[in-house]
Amino acid sequence: MKLPLGYRYAATYAGIRKVEKDDLALIVSGAPAAAAGVFTGNRAAAAPVILSREHLADSGGQVGAVIINAGNANCATRTGRQVALASCRAVASRLKMPASLVLPASTGVIGVELPGSKIVSAVPRLAAALGGDDAAFDRVAQAILTTDLVAKTAFASCGGIRIAGMTKGSGMIQPRMATTLGFVMTDAVIGVVALRKILRRAIEKSFNRISVDGDTSTNDTVLLLANGSSGVRAVPAAFEDAVTEVLVDLAKQIVRDGEGAKKLVTIDVAGAPSGAAAEALARAIANSPLVKTAIAGADPNWGRILSAAANAGVPFNPSKVDITVQGVVVCKGGLAAPIREAEVKKKLEEKDVHIEFTIRGGASSTRFWTCDLTEEYIRINASYRT
Amino acid sequence: MKLPLGYRYAATYAGIRKVEKDDLALIVSGAPAAAAGVFTGNRAAAAPVILSREHLADSGGQVGAVIINAGNANCATRTGRQVALASCRAVASRLKMPASLVLPASTGVIGVELPGSKIVSAVPRLAAALGGDDAAFDRVAQAILTTDLVAKTAFASCGGIRIAGMTKGSGMIQPRMATTLGFVMTDAVIGVVALRKILRRAIEKSFNRISVDGDTSTNDTVLLLANGSSGVRAVPAAFEDAVTEVLVDLAKQIVRDGEGAKKLVTIDVAGAPSGAAAEALARAIANSPLVKTAIAGADPNWGRILSAAANAGVPFNPSKVDITVQGVVVCKGGLAAPIREAEVKKKLEEKDVHIEFTIRGGASSTRFWTCDLTEEYIRINASYRT
Repeated sequence: MKLPLGYRYAATYAGIRKVEKDDLALIVSGAPAAAAGVFTGNRAAAAPVILSREHLADSGGQVGAVIINAGNANCATRTGRQVALASCRAVASRLKMPASLVLPASTGVIGVELPGSKIVSAVPRLAAALGGDDAAFDRVAQAILTTDLVAKTAFASCGGIRIAGMTKGSGMIQPRMATTLGFVMTDAVIGVVALRKILRRAIEKSFNRISVDGDTSTNDTVLLLANGSSGVRAVPAAFEDAVTEVLVDLAKQIVRDGEGAKKLVTIDVAGAPSGAAAEALARAIANSPLVKTAIAGADPNWGRILSAAANAGVPFNPSKVDITVQGVVVCKGGLAAPIREAEVKKKLEEKDVHIEFTIRGGASSTRFWTCDLTEEYIRINASYRT
Repeated sequence: MKLPLGYRYAATYAGIRKVEKDDLALIVSGAPAAAAGVFTGNRAAAAPVILSREHLADSGGQVGAVIINAGNANCATRTGRQVALASCRAVASRLKMPASLVLPASTGVIGVELPGSKIVSAVPRLAAALGGDDAAFDRVAQAILTTDLVAKTAFASCGGIRIAGMTKGSGMIQPRMATTLGFVMTDAVIGVVALRKILRRAIEKSFNRISVDGDTSTNDTVLLLANGSSGVRAVPAAFEDAVTEVLVDLAKQIVRDGEGAKKLVTIDVAGAPSGAAAEALARAIANSPLVKTAIAGADPNWGRILSAAANAGVPFNPSKVDITVQGVVVCKGGLAAPIREAEVKKKLEEKDVHIEFTIRGGASSTRFWTCDLTEEYIRINASYRT
């Protein structure tokens, strides 16, 4: 059994999406779970993000249930707060818990009113369908998707503790605080304060190190719930490693399923003057449309990598830069290294691309993930709503 | 006669491009011109940019000739400085002027050695072909192009003074100091100090307010030359207006010819707390791939505009935002305004798109130009070198 103990899951079609496909999901913890959350840094944060923050504060970091809808972001909507609150209240009343123990999350189109009555009337159906098995978990992981092609789940265990995570997202991805939606359940025994610290650090190594298109969503939310059902107290370092492993796994799955993406690109920056500089360099390379299209075309055009990094606002000496693509040194000391172009091009046709950008001098490094930029990205986004 | 007096132009094929198309151009002023230049803010500035800065400093802002090549950026090259210097010396020796009066400019692929001997041996041919007529001017405007589909020129006059400008660029466009290559010639009588101020202010309203793909080139250069041949002393305000008019015209032509672009998008931001905030908001909207693909798809998806602006790092209250697309209010006070969607969609199919983003409260505004993001952008950039 890979799932953590003490959680139940359900999903249904509530009529929010145009197509008949599950669009409403519920995650319930038997006992209230210690919870930590990270949320979008976008200033136009959606109503469910704002309410989730408030509920987490009100409950002192306790969560009993999460109600999630896809197909509508409930952002820039007149009735946003009312609808999010009504959803939480419907769940709370059905499951006999205070509304502040219920967190709402939404994903989908911005600026369209979310029909709250559809959610409220679907809650009894959802509550009746709750199950603790793999099928129920997987159905929720499916229900929260939008333009994603595949469901994204990851699992880990650590000394009798189980961790299971799910996430969604393939466009509007450049999390600065978290990303799109992610839910990680564990049956560990651990306090809220420790949980918050672990989530914050793990997010910095995972969801805050990916980019699909440089846009940050208005609804980004990642929740980490720990309900203690295993009876096993978490050993902090080992537990943090396991949580990080799950979050990194989920984050990479988002990038691999990036809108139109054919390739997962791992960018390693080393020798930077600081951690922030390393991140800025990696992000600049990851977000450059010219780098991303070159990778789509299997073109070892390292000049674009150098140029993108040199726009990051980080001072460095271009003549101290080495760039490696698929393990081949293509730029040494800021200059072209002798390569067999056809050979590198062939290596770049693989589904996993590795770029190493090293500045001689500094001691800071980071790892970042992005995807290539293909014509399919345009096709998906030129007609998202129609 | 629309061309300023006292300038001659020539272009030839020197064998730098793979295809046989003019790739080397020369602009010569009869008398040394007062000159002002703005250059890329990219930290990996190309050798010709560095040398142009030095020559302008050495000569006290005097320019006799500009030698320009396309097909190779002469950036991240071992012999970059030598080649740029040899090109200037070849021109200087032929035209009997100090080498410091010659500025080099390059555009094209990064990281490939530029064959200096091809330039040096073509200089006599170029010098012999110099002409002052429209045909010679147009041939230079053609020779400096790379992925551009059309040549870009603009003209103005002001009280007996003529101004003629040319520019190139359609990808790697997000000038922060200048853009790609731009050359503006005038026969005004004006000093270097005044010229520099005028160029700096005019650039802020033109080349620094456009974006195609958010990448800033390593080679961006805009030069303004004033050789005094008209004998007419420039009236500062009127002359600045005319120069600005030419630069705005050229900048818009770059965006209209953006790689794969089908539409020119004008973004007006108003009510921002400061000029810098207005620019940051406009730039964030202009650079959002989700906004740009929605425009490609004629989709009035204003939620993406709001979300992009809310990522700009500028504090504002989303409930005070109004958004207008093609003159139709689509978002009022941060909420959906009632629109006839089919009608707005039809208006968005026009070649010129106008977005107005207004925050109630502040007093600062700016205008910014970008283009839509289409599948053609990917096709062009996935195979730029091959």
